[in-house]
Amino acid sequence: MRPWRWLLLTAAFVLGAFLVRASSTEKEQKEKSTNLEQAAIRAILGAQQKAWNDGNVEAFLEGYWQSEDLTFSGSQGISRGLRAVRERYQKSYPDRQTMGKLDFSGLEIRLLGPDAALVLGHWHLTREKGDVGGVFSLVLERFPEGWRIIHDHTSVVPAYVSR
Amino acid sequence: MRPWRWLLLTAAFVLGAFLVRASSTEKEQKEKSTNLEQAAIRAILGAQQKAWNDGNVEAFLEGYWQSEDLTFSGSQGISRGLRAVRERYQKSYPDRQTMGKLDFSGLEIRLLGPDAALVLGHWHLTREKGDVGGVFSLVLERFPEGWRIIHDHTSVVPAYVSR
Repeated sequence: MRPWRWLLLTAAFVLGAFLVRASSTEKEQKEKSTNLEQAAIRAILGAQQKAWNDGNVEAFLEGYWQSEDLTFSGSQGISRGLRAVRERYQKSYPDRQTMGKLDFSGLEIRLLGPDAALVLGHWHLTREKGDVGGVFSLVLERFPEGWRIIHDHTSVVPAYVSR
Repeated sequence: MRPWRWLLLTAAFVLGAFLVRASSTEKEQKEKSTNLEQAAIRAILGAQQKAWNDGNVEAFLEGYWQSEDLTFSGSQGISRGLRAVRERYQKSYPDRQTMGKLDFSGLEIRLLGPDAALVLGHWHLTREKGDVGGVFSLVLERFPEGWRIIHDHTSVVPAYVSR
């Protein structure tokens, strides 16, 4: 093999190693960013759970998009706007006893793009007057101020109550 | 004003007009693409409605992600994977009479990024044995083969049945 061939091979090897390194760094960066976003979303839901258990519905509502375009679907149909969502919560949970102690569990967070995420999970209210629980699907969007729930679809699962 | 100033002003005007034109074309392109994606998503749901009304549950299921990661939430909890979703439909709607005539209405499509969308809507089954209806929230993802539902959260709304 002629000397310039060795040179070419060495150059190709260095370039190859560089590309592998660059792509692995990109992958690491992406994973790191995904983990950060998932942690930010978990923090929003953690704050909601705490606010609920403090009996603070206003603080609970801070996890939602403060907009007329916020939507909430469930067995009462579709509520539209933060005001309607607030009224729905106030009507369904008029006092601390009805609110009970909230637990979210089995959270599954799927990023749908750089600024959107889907979260599936279970909710459970421990109450003296009888427990209730079910499942929710949340769509979150990332705003300059952070992730907010732009759509909530919540269902009661009767089979969960007896658990 | 000296002649070269006129030249400068003319150049600035032409550049400005060009930039306005370019940005409006970009906006038009984006709107066009949004309309195309919304039409593609409507077509998927239209095909599902037709398949259902033909009594063809297999064709109806083609609108869903053909994956073990497909999820379906509702008053029975979370079903996972296409097989479980198929079984859920077969159990809940064992025959044509139970399936009835399906209508989707009030579709709201929000694109969440280049490859994800949220669809809210109402469903109604007209049946001899009694109508039933409610709301759904679908999250769709764009795959090389087209848009598919990756998550479905469906609720019965008892108040809708008497409408």
